[in-house]
Amino acid sequence: MHIDILTLFPEMFSGVFNNSILKKAHDNEKYSYNLVNFREYTENKHKKVDDYPYGGGAGMVLTPQPVFDAVEAITKKENTKPRIILMCPQGQAYNQKKAEELANEEHLIIICGHYEGYDERIREHLVTDEISIGDYVLTGGELGAMVVVDSVVRLLPNVLGNEESAPKDSFSTGLLEHPHYTRPADFRGMKVPDVLMSGDHAKIENWRRTESLKRTYMRRKELLEDLELSVEDRRRLQEVSKQDS
Amino acid sequence: MHIDILTLFPEMFSGVFNNSILKKAHDNEKYSYNLVNFREYTENKHKKVDDYPYGGGAGMVLTPQPVFDAVEAITKKENTKPRIILMCPQGQAYNQKKAEELANEEHLIIICGHYEGYDERIREHLVTDEISIGDYVLTGGELGAMVVVDSVVRLLPNVLGNEESAPKDSFSTGLLEHPHYTRPADFRGMKVPDVLMSGDHAKIENWRRTESLKRTYMRRKELLEDLELSVEDRRRLQEVSKQDS
Repeated sequence: MHIDILTLFPEMFSGVFNNSILKKAHDNEKYSYNLVNFREYTENKHKKVDDYPYGGGAGMVLTPQPVFDAVEAITKKENTKPRIILMCPQGQAYNQKKAEELANEEHLIIICGHYEGYDERIREHLVTDEISIGDYVLTGGELGAMVVVDSVVRLLPNVLGNEESAPKDSFSTGLLEHPHYTRPADFRGMKVPDVLMSGDHAKIENWRRTESLKRTYMRRKELLEDLELSVEDRRRLQEVSKQDS
Repeated sequence: MHIDILTLFPEMFSGVFNNSILKKAHDNEKYSYNLVNFREYTENKHKKVDDYPYGGGAGMVLTPQPVFDAVEAITKKENTKPRIILMCPQGQAYNQKKAEELANEEHLIIICGHYEGYDERIREHLVTDEISIGDYVLTGGELGAMVVVDSVVRLLPNVLGNEESAPKDSFSTGLLEHPHYTRPADFRGMKVPDVLMSGDHAKIENWRRTESLKRTYMRRKELLEDLELSVEDRRRLQEVSKQDS
C-alpha cells in the first residue's frame, strides 16, 4: 500500500511515523508513504493556500487550486485509482469497519486542513471519502491522518507479530475486552480474582466472556445491538442486567 | 495547566508538540507538559513493565507497579489533585464536552499503553477517567493522548487567535458546518453559489443556517436530537426532510 498525505505541516508526522509498528512496517516495506506539502502546488505568488470566505465571516478557507493540483499530480505519478480522503469534522465517523475497508486499497491520499475550512468544491468534486475520527475539535487534520494510517497499516498482511496482535482487539469481536491481570497476585492488598489462578480453563473462559459482556453492557450498551449472541451469551447478559437493576 | 504523559514511546510526541498551536501555547506558557517514560519506575531488574496474563492467553499485560509508582511520584512532586486519565478502547467516548470539562482542570496525567492490556487494578484503583477517542484499534494510547492534549489546550484562555478560532467549530454549535467557498468564483467551471456573491447578509445567513441543518440532517441525524431548535430552524428542517423524501 502507498499513502500520500497532503499537509501544510509535514514535520508533525515524524515522531509517530518513526516509531513502533509504523516504523517497522515501513522498514519491512509493508507500506510506503509520502508527505506532500500542498503549499508547493499553489499558483499564488505569495505562496498562499487560503483566502477569505465568499459571503463574509471570520476564518479562512483553503482554496481549491493547490489541493486539486497536488492530488492530480500524485494520481498521475502513481498511475492508480486512489481513495481520496478528506479529514474533517463533517465526515463519516471513523470506525474499525472503515479501517478494514481502507486496508484493502492499494493507494490512499489523505488531505489534512489546518484551522481553515475547505472550499466546498474539494468536497464535492475531488474526494471519495470524508472521515471524522470523533466529535471533538482538533487544530488540523494531521492527528486524524495519523489515526487512519496507524489503524490501517496494522491490518496489512504480516505487519503485526503475535505479541502485538493479541490481546484480542475490542472492536473486532464487537465486545469490550474483559479485565486483564498480571503479577503480582497481590499488589498492595489488591488481589487477582481467584478464578484466574484456578487453572480451570473452562471456568476462566466463562468468567472472561461474562466480564466482557458485562463491561459492554455497562459502558457501551449500543454495541450489543449489532451482535448476534449465542443462547449462552444471552443467558449471561440476563444475569448481568439482573445485577444491574 | 500542567500535563504529564506516561508513555513507553516519549519520542512519538515530538512532531505534534513542536508545531502549530501546541508549540505556540507552550512557548507562551499557556500550558506545560512532561513526557514520563514509566519504564524508569519499574522495580523489575530487566526493566520490564509487562508480564503474562493470569489465566493464560496471548498478549502481555502492563504490571501495576511502575504505573502506580510513576503517578504517585508525579502527584507528590506537583502537589495537586490531578485527573488521571487512562487511554483505552473500553473508555468513555471522547467528545467536545469532555474536552471542555478537562480544560477546567489544573493538572492532567494521561496514561498510554502500547500493544498490551492494562492490569485491571490500574483501572479500578488509580485512574479517575477512562477515555477512548473512537471505535477503532490503534497501536497504543499515544495518538489518543495527543488528541486529548490538542483538543484541550486549544480551549485554554488566550491560546487561540481570532483567525484560528473561526470558522465556528462544528461541535460547539451542535450542528455540522455549512459549506465554505473562496476564490476563484469559477474554478474549472465549478461555481460559487450566487447567494454568497449577493451581498445580502440576511439571505446569506439564512442559506448558511439551512445548509448547516441540512448537512447535519443528512449525515448525523442523531446530533439534532440533543438540540433545542428555534421555530425558524424547525421550519428549515421540514423543508430539508421534504426534499429528502
